[in-house]
Amino acid sequence: TQNYRITLLPGDGIGPEIMAIAVDVLNLVGQQLDLSFTFTEAAIGGSAIDATGEPLPSETLKQCQDSDAVLLAAIGGYKWDNLPRHQRPETGLLGLRAGLNLFANLRPATILPQLVDASSLKREVVEGVDIMVVRELTGGIYFGQPKGIFETETGEKRGVNTMAYTESEIDRIGRVAFETARKRQGKLCSVDKANVLDVSQLWRDRITQLAAEYSDIELSHLYVDNAAMQLVRWPKQFDTIVTGNLFGDILSDAAAMLTGSIGMLPSASLGSSGPGLFEPVHGSAPDIAGQDKANPIAQVLSAAMMLRYGLDQPEAAIKIEQAVLQVLDAGYRTGDIMSEGMKLVGCRQMGDALLQAL
Amino acid sequence: TQNYRITLLPGDGIGPEIMAIAVDVLNLVGQQLDLSFTFTEAAIGGSAIDATGEPLPSETLKQCQDSDAVLLAAIGGYKWDNLPRHQRPETGLLGLRAGLNLFANLRPATILPQLVDASSLKREVVEGVDIMVVRELTGGIYFGQPKGIFETETGEKRGVNTMAYTESEIDRIGRVAFETARKRQGKLCSVDKANVLDVSQLWRDRITQLAAEYSDIELSHLYVDNAAMQLVRWPKQFDTIVTGNLFGDILSDAAAMLTGSIGMLPSASLGSSGPGLFEPVHGSAPDIAGQDKANPIAQVLSAAMMLRYGLDQPEAAIKIEQAVLQVLDAGYRTGDIMSEGMKLVGCRQMGDALLQAL
Ligand SMILES: CC(C)[C@H](C(=O)O)[C@@H](O)C(=O)O
Ligand SMILES: CC(C)[C@H](C(=O)O)[C@@H](O)C(=O)O
Repeated sequence: TQNYRITLLPGDGIGPEIMAIAVDVLNLVGQQLDLSFTFTEAAIGGSAIDATGEPLPSETLKQCQDSDAVLLAAIGGYKWDNLPRHQRPETGLLGLRAGLNLFANLRPATILPQLVDASSLKREVVEGVDIMVVRELTGGIYFGQPKGIFETETGEKRGVNTMAYTESEIDRIGRVAFETARKRQGKLCSVDKANVLDVSQLWRDRITQLAAEYSDIELSHLYVDNAAMQLVRWPKQFDTIVTGNLFGDILSDAAAMLTGSIGMLPSASLGSSGPGLFEPVHGSAPDIAGQDKANPIAQVLSAAMMLRYGLDQPEAAIKIEQAVLQVLDAGYRTGDIMSEGMKLVGCRQMGDALLQAL
Repeated sequence: TQNYRITLLPGDGIGPEIMAIAVDVLNLVGQQLDLSFTFTEAAIGGSAIDATGEPLPSETLKQCQDSDAVLLAAIGGYKWDNLPRHQRPETGLLGLRAGLNLFANLRPATILPQLVDASSLKREVVEGVDIMVVRELTGGIYFGQPKGIFETETGEKRGVNTMAYTESEIDRIGRVAFETARKRQGKLCSVDKANVLDVSQLWRDRITQLAAEYSDIELSHLYVDNAAMQLVRWPKQFDTIVTGNLFGDILSDAAAMLTGSIGMLPSASLGSSGPGLFEPVHGSAPDIAGQDKANPIAQVLSAAMMLRYGLDQPEAAIKIEQAVLQVLDAGYRTGDIMSEGMKLVGCRQMGDALLQAL
């Protein structure tokens, strides 16, 4: 039996409920494929602030570093929104990304045939959409120095952040993107703002140079404003997208929302070595926390991404993904994806249906 | 007779064709309402580069400064895409914005009942959408210092741009936004990334403080990633949006594309005093330039915005806007907005229909 040490970060809001389902699913798939998991929970986000005063206690980071993969549910909530930034849940997440050196964020936006009608876009526009956004995650304006709020000569305040990329940072994420495109449809679109920003000019130059090593990949470039338009206009033109931290934040969420069902979407954050971080795209939904209403599927699909990208167990990932399709085919729906004629279930019941399907 | 000195910047691609229509429309409305226009053309963008080596010759800027308003068509094209940045068409536009101190960009995204089906979104999602994006236009990462491509200690290159706002810059655009919301539905949504960026924290704090002076306006805040999602999910929740230069670039284009017909959308760029700049949202469409296929309506509606916001002649603006609705009701459509059962016309014919309607 292959054993994996998994750190679980249930976090805030609906986090614990959906995490419980993912753990059950992992355990069952593990039994079936002779894998075993040692799960250890750790605190992050708002619940960590409440317990320790810090959104990312150092024991949590240490424990994540010592594991084979990290499964996160969701962080944040109104309660912590007005704390100073270094004490906010989001800061814990940024610290975790930096602390594990997770420079590559993979954000699939896939529309499942069963849920096409959940989209705000017309059926013919979104049917078959299958986009992978590769977002740089430890650089750019999220981490660039100098940053802060400074006083100007005239005595007024000036807020400052720095968007910066070095050549090696660009190359590193570029390679992940080209490799990702290679496993998909072989099309890569790099998004920047090279008509205005120097940092984007360097980005475009390097990605263009890298392309020489990936002659099987069809590379294109779009300015970020145009990319946002094209995602809305005709998303099927995209296969793999690569972009910086901030543009990736915006475009991956826009792409996710094209599906109309963000309760379905997982993500992976990877470094060059060491454990990856796997988490749903959706938030902690404090309004429905503890009510057994949450959709656990994004969390379960995050566990599948963990198996595929973090633990190199694609067979187990496929089993989970197929179980998800099966429960959707059988008509099970949580409230967020409910539609006429389907069976409305809670979080726990959806979990049971998934275990049944497995 | 009130006389206005208008600088015309036809620019590149389809620019001259659509500008010609707008001039005809302005002249006719002027006759009807006892206004007269003295038009003077000047060079900008690619055609200026070809003629003078510079995208914004100093005579052009000077002439714009000396006029009552500036009407621009479109700039850019493949031909100039690989020039160094200081010689690119876009740089001319940025120089014009800075040179005229046009800090407030008004970008309406309105869906006309006649064109609802042009949208990639479902009818019930976009019907009645009427959003005004107020984008800060002379600050933020577009102009922040330091910027450039520098060498690091290890000898590799690092691209750098600075996103910065001072309190007075935020207040200035904030006031325009609150005033704009007051003339609309009284709802203002400020978009930032305050959970990550210091500059956004200052932005949010100042906008929140300003709100005390505008107690009749309902203010909300969204993070930019969430704003991109909400625009796709349910755009009708928005009335007026205010945001910085870069976020405004992305969100105003995303909002524009919700309509599915960006050939219809005008924009205004305003300073505290001095001439404003009025231009379509769409680009120079070099692929159809000179073929009499372009849609002149965004240009004509930009002339209407010029009359309303630049010359304080709302009556003339309304006349033009009504003529546009009339030709659409009569079934005239250029290729970009053509649909079954409508009358396909070229640029010139659309212009004639507009003159007829007036
Ligand atoms: C919570 C926030 C810091 C985070 C980000 O901006 O990266 C989130 O929006 C995301 O995309 O994971
Ligand atoms: C052409 C470019 C410099 C410009 C911008 O980014 O501001 C354009 O996209 C716009 O929105 O007017």
